[in-house]
Amino acid sequence: MVSIGLWLVGARGSVATTAIAGLLALRDRIVQPEGCVSALPQFEGSGLPTWDEIRVGGHDIAETALDKRAELLTDSGVIPHRVLDAVRSGLSEVDGDIRGGYHPATHSGSQADAARRLADDIGEFSSRHGLDRVVVVNVSSTEPVFPSLPEHRTLEALEAAMAVPGRTVLPPSSVAAYAAIRAGCPFVDFTPSTGIRLPALTELARRQAIPYAGSDGKTGETLVRSTLAPMFAARALSVRSWSGTNLLGGGDGLTLADAEHAGSKLASKGRGLATLLGSEVTAPLHIDNVPDLGEQKIAWDHVSFSGFLGVRMSVQFTWSGYDSALAAPLVLDLARFTSAAHAAGKAGPLGALGFFFKDPVGTDEHRLAEQFAALVSWAGEL
Amino acid sequence: MVSIGLWLVGARGSVATTAIAGLLALRDRIVQPEGCVSALPQFEGSGLPTWDEIRVGGHDIAETALDKRAELLTDSGVIPHRVLDAVRSGLSEVDGDIRGGYHPATHSGSQADAARRLADDIGEFSSRHGLDRVVVVNVSSTEPVFPSLPEHRTLEALEAAMAVPGRTVLPPSSVAAYAAIRAGCPFVDFTPSTGIRLPALTELARRQAIPYAGSDGKTGETLVRSTLAPMFAARALSVRSWSGTNLLGGGDGLTLADAEHAGSKLASKGRGLATLLGSEVTAPLHIDNVPDLGEQKIAWDHVSFSGFLGVRMSVQFTWSGYDSALAAPLVLDLARFTSAAHAAGKAGPLGALGFFFKDPVGTDEHRLAEQFAALVSWAGEL
Amino acid sequence: MVSIGLWLVGARGSVATTAIAGLLALRDRIVQPEGCVSALPQFEGSGLPTWDEIRVGGHDIAETALDKRAELLTDSGVIPHRVLDAVRSGLSEVDGDIRGGYHPATHSGSQADAARRLADDIGEFSSRHGLDRVVVVNVSSTEPVFPSLPEHRTLEALEAAMAVPGRTVLPPSSVAAYAAIRAGCPFVDFTPSTGIRLPALTELARRQAIPYAGSDGKTGETLVRSTLAPMFAARALSVRSWSGTNLLGGGDGLTLADAEHAGSKLASKGRGLATLLGSEVTAPLHIDNVPDLGEQKIAWDHVSFSGFLGVRMSVQFTWSGYDSALAAPLVLDLARFTSAAHAAGKAGPLGALGFFFKDPVGTDEHRLAEQFAALVSWAGEL
Amino acid sequence: MVSIGLWLVGARGSVATTAIAGLLALRDRIVQPEGCVSALPQFEGSGLPTWDEIRVGGHDIAETALDKRAELLTDSGVIPHRVLDAVRSGLSEVDGDIRGGYHPATHSGSQADAARRLADDIGEFSSRHGLDRVVVVNVSSTEPVFPSLPEHRTLEALEAAMAVPGRTVLPPSSVAAYAAIRAGCPFVDFTPSTGIRLPALTELARRQAIPYAGSDGKTGETLVRSTLAPMFAARALSVRSWSGTNLLGGGDGLTLADAEHAGSKLASKGRGLATLLGSEVTAPLHIDNVPDLGEQKIAWDHVSFSGFLGVRMSVQFTWSGYDSALAAPLVLDLARFTSAAHAAGKAGPLGALGFFFKDPVGTDEHRLAEQFAALVSWAGEL
Ligand SMILES: NC(=O)c1ccc[n+]([C@@H]2O[C@H](COP(=O)([O-])OP(=O)(O)OC[C@H]3O[C@@H](n4cnc5c(N)ncnc54)[C@H](O)[C@@H]3O)[C@@H](O)[C@H]2O)c1
Ligand SMILES: NC(=O)c1ccc[n+]([C@@H]2O[C@H](COP(=O)([O-])OP(=O)(O)OC[C@H]3O[C@@H](n4cnc5c(N)ncnc54)[C@H](O)[C@@H]3O)[C@@H](O)[C@H]2O)c1
Ligand SMILES: NC(=O)c1ccc[n+]([C@@H]2O[C@H](COP(=O)([O-])OP(=O)(O)OC[C@H]3O[C@@H](n4cnc5c(N)ncnc54)[C@H](O)[C@@H]3O)[C@@H](O)[C@H]2O)c1
Ligand SMILES: NC(=O)c1ccc[n+]([C@@H]2O[C@H](COP(=O)([O-])OP(=O)(O)OC[C@H]3O[C@@H](n4cnc5c(N)ncnc54)[C@H](O)[C@@H]3O)[C@@H](O)[C@H]2O)c1
Ligand code: NA
Ligand code: NA
Repeated sequence: MVSIGLWLVGARGSVATTAIAGLLALRDRIVQPEGCVSALPQFEGSGLPTWDEIRVGGHDIAETALDKRAELLTDSGVIPHRVLDAVRSGLSEVDGDIRGGYHPATHSGSQADAARRLADDIGEFSSRHGLDRVVVVNVSSTEPVFPSLPEHRTLEALEAAMAVPGRTVLPPSSVAAYAAIRAGCPFVDFTPSTGIRLPALTELARRQAIPYAGSDGKTGETLVRSTLAPMFAARALSVRSWSGTNLLGGGDGLTLADAEHAGSKLASKGRGLATLLGSEVTAPLHIDNVPDLGEQKIAWDHVSFSGFLGVRMSVQFTWSGYDSALAAPLVLDLARFTSAAHAAGKAGPLGALGFFFKDPVGTDEHRLAEQFAALVSWAGEL
Repeated sequence: MVSIGLWLVGARGSVATTAIAGLLALRDRIVQPEGCVSALPQFEGSGLPTWDEIRVGGHDIAETALDKRAELLTDSGVIPHRVLDAVRSGLSEVDGDIRGGYHPATHSGSQADAARRLADDIGEFSSRHGLDRVVVVNVSSTEPVFPSLPEHRTLEALEAAMAVPGRTVLPPSSVAAYAAIRAGCPFVDFTPSTGIRLPALTELARRQAIPYAGSDGKTGETLVRSTLAPMFAARALSVRSWSGTNLLGGGDGLTLADAEHAGSKLASKGRGLATLLGSEVTAPLHIDNVPDLGEQKIAWDHVSFSGFLGVRMSVQFTWSGYDSALAAPLVLDLARFTSAAHAAGKAGPLGALGFFFKDPVGTDEHRLAEQFAALVSWAGEL
Repeated sequence: MVSIGLWLVGARGSVATTAIAGLLALRDRIVQPEGCVSALPQFEGSGLPTWDEIRVGGHDIAETALDKRAELLTDSGVIPHRVLDAVRSGLSEVDGDIRGGYHPATHSGSQADAARRLADDIGEFSSRHGLDRVVVVNVSSTEPVFPSLPEHRTLEALEAAMAVPGRTVLPPSSVAAYAAIRAGCPFVDFTPSTGIRLPALTELARRQAIPYAGSDGKTGETLVRSTLAPMFAARALSVRSWSGTNLLGGGDGLTLADAEHAGSKLASKGRGLATLLGSEVTAPLHIDNVPDLGEQKIAWDHVSFSGFLGVRMSVQFTWSGYDSALAAPLVLDLARFTSAAHAAGKAGPLGALGFFFKDPVGTDEHRLAEQFAALVSWAGEL
Repeated sequence: MVSIGLWLVGARGSVATTAIAGLLALRDRIVQPEGCVSALPQFEGSGLPTWDEIRVGGHDIAETALDKRAELLTDSGVIPHRVLDAVRSGLSEVDGDIRGGYHPATHSGSQADAARRLADDIGEFSSRHGLDRVVVVNVSSTEPVFPSLPEHRTLEALEAAMAVPGRTVLPPSSVAAYAAIRAGCPFVDFTPSTGIRLPALTELARRQAIPYAGSDGKTGETLVRSTLAPMFAARALSVRSWSGTNLLGGGDGLTLADAEHAGSKLASKGRGLATLLGSEVTAPLHIDNVPDLGEQKIAWDHVSFSGFLGVRMSVQFTWSGYDSALAAPLVLDLARFTSAAHAAGKAGPLGALGFFFKDPVGTDEHRLAEQFAALVSWAGEL
């Protein structure tokens, strides 16, 4: 039997825990694959690995065991009681494949050492379970914006800097990406962090002929935006302003409300809107930390537009979703598609996976319908 | 210079008046073609008639002159003051090309007589202005549901029945469609009324090699629905219920709030939703007459859906638009596209125009993005 | 120790079950009295019976035991898991005090017999537990509108008709009210059904010096309306239309979507709005049955109003609540207040309890702030 | 005939221009007093000055004449065309009573000089028209937060500092307040600026026995908040978070989006919410400048609360109003009430006018219904 690995950076976070619990439940056939794009009939012939063929491990810097994390998610309404009961022992098993992640605050030595250790963890996971390949997906906390450095430009300069003990030339997400590629694994960035998006790292991926995908899972407000914005364009309606507010609790809420972190998230949201509308519009955007919402995310968008004879109209929407429940199945989808792409010999940025991301690499297409069509056609040729 | 005619059934209604005022303003270059799909760069090479090449006439049973109707629309915020001032005399000129429409309540004689008279009006309009072709667009009041009769099945049976004095075998919209085809004119139904959608009439169109399009302009809630619903499908999210409420004033509000009339409108809205979602869902839908809203239409939709592990989520939107401002440019678009299709020798149902309709003839595609792609590719081959 | 009884008609319904489970949880001090008006500091000196002093029994025509009903409410998110676990045995105990209710479809004999049996059930409950008094609260399914009959006018005529075997001169809610008063118990109608609101029955209450209250608990959309509408009046803003849509699942959704039943609910909602605004406005209102919402109720209201120089503005709100969670604490509040009123010798309609009702008896005040002030001052004098 | 003056600081702004145009229209009986609280029947016996008895003048630093400003407001939908036509010449007449305002950037000399000049302008306006009294209302641009200085503590210290040439010891709003009191005129602050709220200035008002009122007109989101929040308190529902977003264009939008200016506005909004709910809650609040909205203001509020058994629920509202249309009638109301209070010998802070303000002086009551009751009873005793 073919067998693939899904290695999660941030393996004990909300998204990861939900994805793992869900995978176990899917394997046990106790839930339907709701929210799983890869389970749509359109992808039946694409030879994607089945739920039974995926094994999970990962890195995290948190200590809370997966089953404890899952209990919290059950209280928050993300994982149903009966699913938790059914997957509890499976979670503990997966937890045994989680290793300590890299974080500059606790690491001593060079980043080269750190990367080597991370790559070794992945390699051992692969051998331990006799896996055909391992896909690394970053679902760790969003990082603050990292400054651009000259060492990021070439692989040579980068590796020289990484070798200097005590130097922090890369943010953790990029160390993770580097380690993944060095371990021969495709890398997917589900977060807005830098990850692989540095010339030195894409150079490495190209040399090693490794595929990668990202960035920043498209799950809530942006998902609706990328669906709705093309309507205005197709109808020749001029969007005058598109204002948004996001209320979120959970770990992500705390991280993102911090101005600097939000910087990278807001940027990746903003990029899409301008592209979708074909021009810059007034687009104030806020992310607020509202702890009592727990895992829920509420987003309100107000779009002001003008039509025939300049008449002013508006549409507003309120999205009320559970972020982790929206993100988790996409993580599984990405593991399946990326693994199949790797098996099929694809390398470099997988633009066809842009459907899943707020800020897609390898493509400029942000319109959801077009992205879906592209995904279907690409998968049809795997 | 090529010159085409746009013959409006219901030429003194809100939609018609706005379309006419807008056409005059576009011709004078005092407004931008906002809301005009046919003015998008994608259609530049399709050889569509220009604003200057379109001449308007029509039928109506109302007496209020176009400029008076336009004044009301100015008070309601649909036509800007400066536009009204600029087009006032042009409106009076067009008003001179409006003839009395057919209505069973005021007509004596057979429906064959009525149809002949309507066809003659169109013919005279065409000769008077030396037009190359005339497109007939029905923008008259939505009719109550009309019973299905055996005479509707074949042209022969139908014409025999139409010849009987005093018999009302067809609703007015179908008399208009019949007259249009008999006059050699393409027919577009912008309303949910029966129009050409009877076997006998489509037979006639086929025989005469005339193209037609419809039904029911897609301008507000349904426009958003056909944009948003595919998102759930593409993301494997299960829509559990999709509830809608429409508040509208204006003449249309009055007509549609009447249960029987709403019957045909609600039906054409409902058909689309089930197709879009791939299955029937609970979908209560209301149309309320709220006179103080004037020409404004407010629609609220609440979509309840489930995702990964069955978790329940929701999205709701409020649309606040001016119906006539949304509909009018589409009437002009339809005149341009249908005229070009006729010139290019197309006949029968124009499925590629499904983009414009709630209940498209000649196609089963309801997804807006796919409809737009189909329109662009079809127009590219005209 | 003083000890009072709360006799629920419809004791196995959602509202009743939630109220009972909550009372048990309050008694165990495992929850805070959130949502309980009577627990506010303003009522501390009013000598209301404590949670420990209330014992519950009731009538129902359903057989599902209380703990089974409570499980369903736990799945729907109304009763937390830990509360269910803690009160399960208490629920079974209360279930032992539930007797078969009266329903014309299953009853043979006269309505007088039925009423006698109901009154006896209450009396036995009272003696069994040595209660000082019993308050009867109707939380059974909303009834269809019942025709007005001449026999409703006087007690004498009514009792004569009730004595006729096989005659259904009263709807069940009124049989329940009659039985309550005959048993010497205050009667509270939490539903929009007829209940005590017949001249013959209020005559009986007056003669027996029994207090009563009603009708139709004010929990969702109407609660917000009675809060918001006075703002427009105080600011001299003219409401032009107030449109509403209610989406609800659950047993109540099913019952109310039925046109005839909704009749009584819509009527009691409508009465309030006109009174609040000081004049009739366009106010379309819908109640839709959307089963997937379960115990959740979503209401959307759109208010169009004009201000200075006639300028048009709007406010809209979406209410997303759990009806039973909103209603249940009010049922406990009503038991406490009504019991204290009875103890204090009050008789007839308790207008001061209008705060709790959509269609209050004994008062014309619908404004929430004024109702609350009246309640506080009335309770201060108990 | 009695005759009073209304002296507007910021007399050429949106609020002022709308108030003036409206007053002229009311005087001509071409509009109804919609939005005018003082025109409610409750205040008929209070001896308020009539529309005919009010004469307007003011200060501004802008040069645009009132009729030009009014044209812009007509384009924005605040002043109807027919009203503009009717009041155009009246506006020019009022414009003749507008004098150059004080601004530190353009002033040379001491603030004492400036204040003297402002007071003289008011005095001359009063004599020129033979007025019985003049009420000064500040409707000028919101100021940035001004630092607290020791000189603000006593009148003596303040006047000493004001006499120093070139020193800016007071923000313009406080110079205006000082000048008003020195001219013997009641002062009303419709803005969140400092105005009279300094110990030295309230001391002056007390000594001169002059009444004053403020601060920050309550017109949109806060109006709804002060109506809705008491509902949660009265129903013992615990508000967990109350999040708000304000989208506004216009001059105010530009001023307020500036972080520092918004500081004072957000502070005055925040103070109310905590008082209304009885405790601090998570309450993120944003003000965004969205120029295309013109004079329109859209506010979205999301309230998350818990009820019985801790169950989580929510209500959200969207307010869509024209700020100037909401504010202008209140300015006229305040002139009428304050003038009557002055005539009746009231002095010091007019807490009974708290109904009109976000951050009322002289009272801690923020609940709208209670504020209205207090206003009615106070006015009844004038
Ligand atoms: N949930 C969504 O809908 C969604 C959508 C798009 C992107 N994302 C992104 O996914 C990521 C995860 O979201 P979440 O809600 O699970 O957040 P979370 O805070 O629950 O989990 C993040 C996890 O990453 C771990 N972590 C932090 N730094 C690490 C490091 N250096 N190495 C290894 N592990 C580390 C944390 O300990 C934690 O367990 C975030 O970056 C978020 O922005 C989520
Ligand atoms: N406005 C939109 O967004 C929109 C969208 C889809 C469909 N429609 C449809 O377009 C139609 C027109 O809408 P409207 O708002 O202009 O309505 P309207 O009531 O303002 O105008 C309808 C006009 O049709 C005329 N008419 C009625 N019966 C006629 C007859 N037998 N022959 C000729 N004329 C007749 C009326 O006198 C009136 O002038 C309606 O059927 C409506 O349902 C409108
Ligand atoms: N939930 C709210 O917020 C709210 C607000 C106002 C009014 N109400 C009213 O409260 C009532 C109860 O609501 P619910 O959600 O609990 O409904 P439900 O359907 O869950 O419960 C009603 C119960 O009444 C029982 N019943 C029916 N006929 C009876 C009869 N003749 N005698 C005795 N029992 C009978 C049913 O068997 C059922 O157990 C309804 O009338 C509803 O309109 C509820
Ligand atoms: N519109 C509302 O609903 C509302 C509600 C509460 C408070 N307010 C406050 O009312 C004020 C006016 O609002 P607006 O929309 O009319 O703003 P605006 O910008 O249209 O008008 C402000 C006017 O003040 C003038 N001004 C500025 N500095 C001055 C000075 N030092 N002396 C004299 N005049 C000066 C400006 O030239 C301008 O004409 C603002 O402070 C606003 O925050 C408005
Ligand atoms: Na919600
Ligand atoms: Na709106």
